[in-house]
Amino acid sequence: MISQETIVALASPSGAGAIAVIRLSGKEALTIAAKVFQSVSGKLISNQKTHTIHLGHIMDEGKVYDQVLLSLFKNPHSYTGEDVVEISCHGSTYIQQQIIQLLLRKGCRMAQAGEFTLRAFLNGKLDLSQAEAVADLISSDNEASHQIAMQQMRGGFSNEIAKLREELLNFASLIELELDFAEEDVEFADRTQFSELLTRIEFVLKRLIDSFAVGNVIKNGIPVAIVGEPNVGKSTLLNALLNEERAIVSEIAGTTRDTIEDELVIGGIGFRFIDTAGIRETKDVVESIGIKKTFEKIEQAQVVIYLIDSSQLSLDNDNLKEVQIELEKIKNQFPMKALVVIGNKADKLSEAQVSNLKTNIPNILLLSAKEKSGIEQLKNQLLSFVNTGALRNNETIVTNTRHYDSLLKALEEIQKVKFGMQTNLPSDLMAIDIKQALYYFGEITGEVTNDELLGNIFANFCIGK
Amino acid sequence: MISQETIVALASPSGAGAIAVIRLSGKEALTIAAKVFQSVSGKLISNQKTHTIHLGHIMDEGKVYDQVLLSLFKNPHSYTGEDVVEISCHGSTYIQQQIIQLLLRKGCRMAQAGEFTLRAFLNGKLDLSQAEAVADLISSDNEASHQIAMQQMRGGFSNEIAKLREELLNFASLIELELDFAEEDVEFADRTQFSELLTRIEFVLKRLIDSFAVGNVIKNGIPVAIVGEPNVGKSTLLNALLNEERAIVSEIAGTTRDTIEDELVIGGIGFRFIDTAGIRETKDVVESIGIKKTFEKIEQAQVVIYLIDSSQLSLDNDNLKEVQIELEKIKNQFPMKALVVIGNKADKLSEAQVSNLKTNIPNILLLSAKEKSGIEQLKNQLLSFVNTGALRNNETIVTNTRHYDSLLKALEEIQKVKFGMQTNLPSDLMAIDIKQALYYFGEITGEVTNDELLGNIFANFCIGK
Repeated sequence: MISQETIVALASPSGAGAIAVIRLSGKEALTIAAKVFQSVSGKLISNQKTHTIHLGHIMDEGKVYDQVLLSLFKNPHSYTGEDVVEISCHGSTYIQQQIIQLLLRKGCRMAQAGEFTLRAFLNGKLDLSQAEAVADLISSDNEASHQIAMQQMRGGFSNEIAKLREELLNFASLIELELDFAEEDVEFADRTQFSELLTRIEFVLKRLIDSFAVGNVIKNGIPVAIVGEPNVGKSTLLNALLNEERAIVSEIAGTTRDTIEDELVIGGIGFRFIDTAGIRETKDVVESIGIKKTFEKIEQAQVVIYLIDSSQLSLDNDNLKEVQIELEKIKNQFPMKALVVIGNKADKLSEAQVSNLKTNIPNILLLSAKEKSGIEQLKNQLLSFVNTGALRNNETIVTNTRHYDSLLKALEEIQKVKFGMQTNLPSDLMAIDIKQALYYFGEITGEVTNDELLGNIFANFCIGK
Repeated sequence: MISQETIVALASPSGAGAIAVIRLSGKEALTIAAKVFQSVSGKLISNQKTHTIHLGHIMDEGKVYDQVLLSLFKNPHSYTGEDVVEISCHGSTYIQQQIIQLLLRKGCRMAQAGEFTLRAFLNGKLDLSQAEAVADLISSDNEASHQIAMQQMRGGFSNEIAKLREELLNFASLIELELDFAEEDVEFADRTQFSELLTRIEFVLKRLIDSFAVGNVIKNGIPVAIVGEPNVGKSTLLNALLNEERAIVSEIAGTTRDTIEDELVIGGIGFRFIDTAGIRETKDVVESIGIKKTFEKIEQAQVVIYLIDSSQLSLDNDNLKEVQIELEKIKNQFPMKALVVIGNKADKLSEAQVSNLKTNIPNILLLSAKEKSGIEQLKNQLLSFVNTGALRNNETIVTNTRHYDSLLKALEEIQKVKFGMQTNLPSDLMAIDIKQALYYFGEITGEVTNDELLGNIFANFCIGK
């Protein structure tokens, strides 16, 4: 099952920095490290305690590769559960390469993507949903996705599933027992209690399944479309929203964040502005979006920002009517999408014009993208569309499509069992459905698994994790 | 002198990876870390031994930031000589930022570039030339520059300077003693021995100064110009030289090297091809370099590759004569530059043509860039221009302009002292020159220093080092 080879990989980000960390894991990790490491104190690392750090040199055939710190983690007290050695070397890419090549020559092989975490799972250090949370944690780029990944990694989700599974397992064994005494027609499993349990499981499963809607948007960001006629200020609005964010991000030197173009984080939630390439390129000048193209764009979005030039609109009643008609169309076509109507260039309006607009377009948000006034209000409104209740209450939120699928399947089986109860299905048939539900619970935490599934999951990890 | 504040910075390269390392140093490093770190074992980090690693969580106000490993280095047993804490966290840039921001709120300040190493120097953990070697080590991207930086960081250069300085100091004190007994006209310092010492110091200084020529090219790469008429295959040759190199570099996943465009490493020595933009862009088709432009290019180079299309040349004697004339011009104008004449497209030549070319252009290297034949020979020839003797013999090589300047000044003073000896200069005047020589030795290792100098040196470091 677990490969016996000792694996090595760069664990810190690639590129040059002050230091870099190279990680070894496996049976031979200490032996291989000992071949190339000469401690300054002269001590042999094999005699050293776990969780200790040693200053020394990486050397081979009289050549000194680098002065390094070596951290020891002895099995089972390590991330992978195997012997682990971490080499903290100077951060030049040349040195990183040289040391890794040396370790390969001494008997390591390059780790595959996610192989350290795969070994941690196979050695029982993490269950599968926790292992998946590690990858989520590394790729999290806002507070909400970070918080969910963190909770999942610490076992919140696994515990919830494990609890349901245990209770169900308990009943399943009672029902199995009844089958052994089938001829005597006894009932070990109290049907009323069992029915209550099924209702409770159904309730929890439904809540978890429902949480996927919010979990998914938190993980992937909420798609927002900005639509509107040319010259109403779409690109200015987009920049006003994004620039502020950029400034915060670039605050700490050395932690340049790979900002996703046109992603905005408000209150810890990511918002992705879709199809903004056109907006940026045309700089609002010659853009011409037909109603069809606008609708295609809205289709992909979850939130629609409909932008109008309020200074133009307030002067021209025909224009106003057109906008009202188009807004009606959008509302009818997409009743489930959150819609924000924004009157831009509001700094140019008289009071009378403001009140006229507010009467004719209820809920219009008047702002000036150029003057950056009203941007905060817009942000608050965007945030109000996300149901952050579960997040605030620290409830388990499902973000992983694989878990979502297993939960749906488990729910289906539980409902079958419930129906079986109501129709007095024989115990042996009901036992099959219960087993199937247990199987789907096990899929989530990894009690039930196969190589292909593991391959798919860990291939998405980065190398070195 | 040393700032009392506790500093923090990202020590691993910026960007996302499996893990990231955040480093704290200063009086409050342990106290601040203790405020935000909750060990899994429940132990307090302040009670733990130096060089130990602790698993736990970064937490504040009930919020869990990450599960991390915390490494402790207690003063003076750390890189900086102060209390140092390294936090190894999950590698998302979001987490890095959050933890650094938290530490800033708890009383750290952001470290300036090179501030960790500056503190190491001020606390006597490294001398100045060793500290400078740390930066060289991090930026080294080939074997030779790595080896020199490593030797310097391990104190090879400092030891050599310190030895000279000590002997000179010894004599200086004897001469000072003579001054105290000036009226008695005694000689404590044996003039013959002193003269021998000065000759020896002069010899070592000259060797070190001479080594800068090779040290400088090793550190910065040897500039190579490829010149020749359009269509002779310059771009093909450049690609043939570079592609092979690229293939080696991309071998190890996760250590993508920031390859300097058009830099080639042969036998551990870097060669920089200068002004190749034109060659690449034009793809050999419409390029037209006049003799003036060619000469400008040669001016910047140390090695000149003069490329001709041997298949054209062997058919046309007028052409051959033109080439001979141009080669003579280059040799006359640049007698000190290494020149390689290459006859490309040699695969198209008959034996008679080969022998004709070899007769008319001695030392011509015939190869085919397209067929990649003869490339190894060319590489060997390029390498032969570098005097790698000192490198092979592990001699001290000076690579730093600042050291070079100090050595030149020290030599000048030593020669003044020598001249003083010959001209029977009074001891008190000679003592001044000796002191000045000692001063320049001290500049190299940092016994003599000032804030401006330190500022200049450490500003070139990366943040986190």
